Amino acid sequence: MRTIRWVNGVVETLDQTKLPNQEVFLQLKSPDEIVEAICNMRIRGAPLIGAAAALALAQTALRHRGGSRSTLLEALRNTAQTIQATRPTAVNLFNSVEKILAFAENAAEVQRGSLAEAVVNESLRFVESEADMSRALGRNGADLLADGDTILTHCNAGALATVEFGTALAVIRAARQLGKRIRVIATETRPLLQGARLTAYELNSDSIPVTLITDNAVGSVMQRKLVNKVIVGADRILTTGHVVNKIGTYVVASLAQSHQVPFYVAAPSTTLDLKSTIDQVVIEQRDPREVLEFQGRRIASEGVDAFNPAFDVTPPELVSAIITEKAVIHPPFEALRTTDAEGGSS
Amino acid sequence: MRTIRWVNGVVETLDQTKLPNQEVFLQLKSPDEIVEAICNMRIRGAPLIGAAAALALAQTALRHRGGSRSTLLEALRNTAQTIQATRPTAVNLFNSVEKILAFAENAAEVQRGSLAEAVVNESLRFVESEADMSRALGRNGADLLADGDTILTHCNAGALATVEFGTALAVIRAARQLGKRIRVIATETRPLLQGARLTAYELNSDSIPVTLITDNAVGSVMQRKLVNKVIVGADRILTTGHVVNKIGTYVVASLAQSHQVPFYVAAPSTTLDLKSTIDQVVIEQRDPREVLEFQGRRIASEGVDAFNPAFDVTPPELVSAIITEKAVIHPPFEALRTTDAEGGSS
Repeated sequence: MRTIRWVNGVVETLDQTKLPNQEVFLQLKSPDEIVEAICNMRIRGAPLIGAAAALALAQTALRHRGGSRSTLLEALRNTAQTIQATRPTAVNLFNSVEKILAFAENAAEVQRGSLAEAVVNESLRFVESEADMSRALGRNGADLLADGDTILTHCNAGALATVEFGTALAVIRAARQLGKRIRVIATETRPLLQGARLTAYELNSDSIPVTLITDNAVGSVMQRKLVNKVIVGADRILTTGHVVNKIGTYVVASLAQSHQVPFYVAAPSTTLDLKSTIDQVVIEQRDPREVLEFQGRRIASEGVDAFNPAFDVTPPELVSAIITEKAVIHPPFEALRTTDAEGGSS
Repeated sequence: MRTIRWVNGVVETLDQTKLPNQEVFLQLKSPDEIVEAICNMRIRGAPLIGAAAALALAQTALRHRGGSRSTLLEALRNTAQTIQATRPTAVNLFNSVEKILAFAENAAEVQRGSLAEAVVNESLRFVESEADMSRALGRNGADLLADGDTILTHCNAGALATVEFGTALAVIRAARQLGKRIRVIATETRPLLQGARLTAYELNSDSIPVTLITDNAVGSVMQRKLVNKVIVGADRILTTGHVVNKIGTYVVASLAQSHQVPFYVAAPSTTLDLKSTIDQVVIEQRDPREVLEFQGRRIASEGVDAFNPAFDVTPPELVSAIITEKAVIHPPFEALRTTDAEGGSS
């Protein structure tokens, strides 16, 4: 089932802040509505944000199909700028926008109407290729899992984080399709509880056995040898093998290493950042109220402050392998530095 | 300010499940009411549970002051059994009950009325000595902290976990009394949020600067070098130096070691267990609903299960020092194996 759909210029998706208690379908009619949904995490997950951004450009193209080529390009650049300002860390957003924009700018001189149409088609092709990548990376990673494994995952790197099938959860789904019995331990993932609300929800819906733990219990389940492997998604992977992902990922990776548990990262090549060094990556700081409150109710005394980085950095020495739609890449991750591993912007 | 008081046979204490939003004072008139308060974590924190258990025995003695010596001893043994069944992990509970019971059983043949009175006095002396121990361990630990330090603490090892002053927070309070400027980073400590609800509350009330983080952000704050030292309390310390404490403590200790951040444990000697090996320690499993719900609101889909160990084990190789009221004990923790370090049951 698709997490995001294009229906006659309207972007349809679930409001992920309402899950699992309510399944609220959003019908986003403009780039501004998509921007609001991304900022407030109704749409979240690096690949899904990338797909939503591509569709915001498609909406812009549709709206300007009657105008001149330069008007269309200017409108696309404006939308690109606005949507790239929503969240600074996940690189898929930047990669997808740059890809569509480059396509529009480099398109041969064509009739006004057909350039807009070509941009819409390019955006839809991009979304389609994201779905294909999820399936392919799932198949690539499935060989790493053994029958009977219990896999720990952090945050939500599932169908809900992507166009469909997922990244980390795509590997688990593909292994199960091969007949392997896989169980999952999901961390709840404070502050926004994507593990409790989204991962447990989608695995349970698929009848994949899932046990929820607090983020604090990661050490305990490893001490008790309840985990065979860890698989997480990523918001940005550098050519050095540094993995930027949901806050707490580094904690999980660090404990996995001390317990000799393999730590895998699953992501499409649109999550690769071929340009940045780790110092150049901006880690988004989110509203302290996400920590100080829970679903609008204050949990800490008035006057208490909070520090709320949304992501952390897992260094390459803690990563056992990176699974993309093209290959399973092992340390020292040389393949990340060749364009062959990369499918995003050039 | 005292966290627990004895007022004419009634045990007065704050309901810690209601903090920080409401300050509800409980007036517990019987051992049964104390048992209910401990089971539901209205009273929590290893030293405070030990003190409450001693006062349950005092209430029992008071109620049987008119009866025979053997009736009194039987009643005390019954209360001891009931209260020891509330929570299996924190050893202070067992140490305090055994101490008072041994006192009663070994007391010289005395008049019926005065044995009951002697048990009440012994219980009150025990509570008083717990307060003295907190002050003394605070002073012992204060030398380990430097002016300008930022200390990370997990869960609540403060005044609210003890008769007064705290354990980990006693060290911080004592360092501040010496004029050292200390800041605190408190983990929120899911599932019951003792860090967000209790530690942030009591530090903020004392005007000690405190910043709240999710448990997931422990790795991030260490990577950013925002933490100079870690201090936590303990629910049970073995003579080997194994520290049993709130779930997530092992995660913090593990990251502290990889970042060369000293990891200190502060506890009165009533938290020492001189008898057990680590395999003999029962780790309490609490209701999965603590994880599946957040302050009474369901966060995971129906049908999802959770694993909810209340404590984990930090091995001695991750512990830089153990601070008691008698000494600062360094690895290999030989002093833990001498009775000199121990003030609880013999």
